[in-house]
Amino acid sequence: MTDKRNPTSRDGPPTQLLVCVKCRRGQDMPQDARRPGEALYDAITALEMPPGISIAPVECLQNCDYGCTVALRGGDDKWTYVFANVDEVDHAQMILDGAARYHTTNDGLIPWRERPEHFKRNCVARIPPMTQPQEALND
Amino acid sequence: MTDKRNPTSRDGPPTQLLVCVKCRRGQDMPQDARRPGEALYDAITALEMPPGISIAPVECLQNCDYGCTVALRGGDDKWTYVFANVDEVDHAQMILDGAARYHTTNDGLIPWRERPEHFKRNCVARIPPMTQPQEALND
Repeated sequence: MTDKRNPTSRDGPPTQLLVCVKCRRGQDMPQDARRPGEALYDAITALEMPPGISIAPVECLQNCDYGCTVALRGGDDKWTYVFANVDEVDHAQMILDGAARYHTTNDGLIPWRERPEHFKRNCVARIPPMTQPQEALND
Repeated sequence: MTDKRNPTSRDGPPTQLLVCVKCRRGQDMPQDARRPGEALYDAITALEMPPGISIAPVECLQNCDYGCTVALRGGDDKWTYVFANVDEVDHAQMILDGAARYHTTNDGLIPWRERPEHFKRNCVARIPPMTQPQEALND
């Protein structure tokens, strides 16, 4: 796969950080209880948002067994990533740091050495870019 | 969430069935061995493709612990779904049937009663539509 990243660029389409706000993180809890997913969303939005990043609450990313869950996407040229086992207290800043690194890439592929450890170990799925040439999918 | 599906429609943007062709399905195997993901891709492409569906090989959807893995997407108005634990021998036709049902929806949400049993139990993640209004994400 061609490496099109440009670590110095912060231009390009905005990056969207999707946060599953309904996540119970595997716990039984009353219907009206404050959910870990909502706490994660609140924790992230309380932080300073890096340039180019917007955050969107989502009702269920359907990774319920391994929540909390977030996803990153950034236009038709980038891979979309889904990350699991996010802690709503300890991981808010790490998620934003990862989102900022994702935003600087052209294709969504954060160089391995720059990738947060949590991202390395907790990616549950990724979706290829819309615009990637068919032949490049098998490079 | 507003129900915008129209079960009788086969119009709209094409549906893309993404198949991870590098999947080892958790097995140790030689580097040059034929992989279960490739077998799944070949099994699906050998079948008659429903209208509106195209199939694309992808090098790693990064759901490696629960492969084989496929994903369905269909333009900016639909949820994208990722399904795990796909059997490369027994599930090819089921995947295509599910893809055809997905294609008839306007939002990617296959009605529960029409959803293949495998889809119900093996969704590892879904990504919201690009065009869904922010406020609808929390309906």
